[in-house]
Amino acid sequence: MNSSNPVRGTRDISPEEMKLRKELEDKILSAFKSAGYNHIETPAIENLDLLMDSEGGENLRMLFTIAKRGKKFKPTENSTVSDLCDTGLRYDLTLPLSRYYSNNKESLENPFKSIQIGNVYRAERPQKGRFRSFKQCDIDIIGDHTIGAEIDLIHTISKALLEVGLDNFVIHLSDRKLLNAYIESFGFDKDQVGTIAISLDKLDKIGKDKVIDELVSKGLNKEKITELVNKAQDISLEEVKKLTGLDETCSNLERIIKAVNETSDGKYKIEFDFSLVRGMGYYTGPIFEIKWGEDAKSIAGGGRYDDMIGKTSKTSEPAVGFSIGFERLVDILMNVVELESEPVKKVLLLCDANKDNMADVISVADKFRAEGYVVSMANKKKNLGKQINKAKDKGYSYLYVYGRDSELKEL
Amino acid sequence: MNSSNPVRGTRDISPEEMKLRKELEDKILSAFKSAGYNHIETPAIENLDLLMDSEGGENLRMLFTIAKRGKKFKPTENSTVSDLCDTGLRYDLTLPLSRYYSNNKESLENPFKSIQIGNVYRAERPQKGRFRSFKQCDIDIIGDHTIGAEIDLIHTISKALLEVGLDNFVIHLSDRKLLNAYIESFGFDKDQVGTIAISLDKLDKIGKDKVIDELVSKGLNKEKITELVNKAQDISLEEVKKLTGLDETCSNLERIIKAVNETSDGKYKIEFDFSLVRGMGYYTGPIFEIKWGEDAKSIAGGGRYDDMIGKTSKTSEPAVGFSIGFERLVDILMNVVELESEPVKKVLLLCDANKDNMADVISVADKFRAEGYVVSMANKKKNLGKQINKAKDKGYSYLYVYGRDSELKEL
Repeated sequence: MNSSNPVRGTRDISPEEMKLRKELEDKILSAFKSAGYNHIETPAIENLDLLMDSEGGENLRMLFTIAKRGKKFKPTENSTVSDLCDTGLRYDLTLPLSRYYSNNKESLENPFKSIQIGNVYRAERPQKGRFRSFKQCDIDIIGDHTIGAEIDLIHTISKALLEVGLDNFVIHLSDRKLLNAYIESFGFDKDQVGTIAISLDKLDKIGKDKVIDELVSKGLNKEKITELVNKAQDISLEEVKKLTGLDETCSNLERIIKAVNETSDGKYKIEFDFSLVRGMGYYTGPIFEIKWGEDAKSIAGGGRYDDMIGKTSKTSEPAVGFSIGFERLVDILMNVVELESEPVKKVLLLCDANKDNMADVISVADKFRAEGYVVSMANKKKNLGKQINKAKDKGYSYLYVYGRDSELKEL
Repeated sequence: MNSSNPVRGTRDISPEEMKLRKELEDKILSAFKSAGYNHIETPAIENLDLLMDSEGGENLRMLFTIAKRGKKFKPTENSTVSDLCDTGLRYDLTLPLSRYYSNNKESLENPFKSIQIGNVYRAERPQKGRFRSFKQCDIDIIGDHTIGAEIDLIHTISKALLEVGLDNFVIHLSDRKLLNAYIESFGFDKDQVGTIAISLDKLDKIGKDKVIDELVSKGLNKEKITELVNKAQDISLEEVKKLTGLDETCSNLERIIKAVNETSDGKYKIEFDFSLVRGMGYYTGPIFEIKWGEDAKSIAGGGRYDDMIGKTSKTSEPAVGFSIGFERLVDILMNVVELESEPVKKVLLLCDANKDNMADVISVADKFRAEGYVVSMANKKKNLGKQINKAKDKGYSYLYVYGRDSELKEL
């Protein structure tokens, strides 16, 4: 392995990609802010107790944990990760938000509408397009129990996506309460719901048969499971309503769908998708995911998690969040859709740094900069022709040789 | 300790501060880009070997190291940090840049002018205004051996500081070669230079007498040390030139001073300061630091480090860097100088999310947003008066109650 490679599962970002990322991030941030969300930032490091607590230790596998320092680092054969580590890198932005909210509740608006844009870290097996360090753009509303919150989040994220040049996406919508009631309607127990939901979540990826196999191998009744899975695939909201009797939950979804479709101007749509599960265990109500393109790439996801904030603040708070997967979005915008942006007018200003009067050289550079050019000063090399050709390759479109030229020359 | 506090030595950032930070970062980035620098990003995580190699293991104390995962985490009583950890958090942006440059050299411009804006992590004792996670804004030039590089960096950083509203700062300039020759001129050996330099670096903080005491306690000759320290405090460039005989080094500094002063338009100045040492061991030529205000707060620092890049790429490359301490700058701009920025016109749009037609509510909100207002939709609470008063406290200047109002009402 080359020692100058970045850490496995992470990557360096080139100037070309950074330009796109910066434009994207600014547009997303501006769309979020325009809808009254508040930009906050929390550290990449969180206390290990908090990180391990949130999902019952299950996510320890994917945590990057940070070793204690100095005398506190005392390994023995029986030392566990928790013995030797005190902090770790955050794996999402929801947990830090809960902590932030608990700590600052008194001084924040209610409901509090937050924006977080930052990297999260997961020690998962790196795959093509999947990194161990990646950026998320989250908006959350804490303190609103109405579906106004869901509608606001979905509308705001959709507008942000339109702003960056993406349209024709589909918002998939379901509700965890419906899924739970559906599973129970087949005679399964409450404590079997989680397992079944996790397998159902894979319908998209591994298909019906493998999901059934997986659940049967967990010891569940084959006949019931087969019916449950078959029915789940294309069931309508009407049918789910009949089956579960959860009229209010269903009519809330109907109202979300109506409000979003009526304001989408035909540029995107929202539909009920009962096969949507969303991995995280903390969701308690509506869940949603945005898919785009022929292969239905997921570019954003979220849902309501009413019980999570209570955990750290001791008073339960309703909360809903929606998160854009920034890397996926960058990938699409670099390879499929092209983001329109102003061309940069780059000038190479050559001088002899050891001889010329550098104050005069700088004055010339600043004059062009004030006119909107990007001006890079550089020391003239012996082989001027080669230097100029290389500059052309690197996107310079103008040349100015100090002491020779009186105006910019096009390359 | 409150479990909802951020990790010791780190902090959460409020929406008010984030607004300032974003404006600052954008202005700095834009000034850097205008001078032809290229924005890149590297991961916060680096391989431990690389992190420990760079400063001879001396910086292990301040490293946040990340534990190996799964079966690779096998502690015993004799396990060292390197046995149990494989990566760590970067403590500066120079090391990642060297790695990036070595890995991408072939495809980069020469000289390569880079911008990096990102957080670095140091497990130092947290103090007022000193954090364990903090942001730096670096520009570097790799591949230019002339003082054109130093002049370019100093001019560009100065313009960035002017852009964010800071002026009357002083750029302190010296050269490591002079310091080394000066120390040797008192009869000390080459291998004593480092120790003496480290103590001299503290002149500002602990004063002359304590520096002398410190060096004498290290076993150095009191008479020589006293003379060395006394003379170092206010020595002029002329005198240093005579004492060391390094004519070219000195005339290079003179030319940097001339170029910078002649282009500063009287808004800042640069001066020779022989007491400037700069902590890092890797500097090989000119070093510089920007100080501001009555208490001469350091807000930026850098220097030439010609031998470092060679370390990973196996071919030595000249390199110079300059770094703005973003947290210090934010601190000054929040508390001393006020950054002028456009006021945000915030509208609170109240509706009944359970009753009103949300599509219509959104249309109203979007109409005001298109006119430049920030519009936050919220569910109307029972005590409307209280809700409105709280909104006023939070900076909302307009109200629109859906179904009641036909236009915005000033609060």
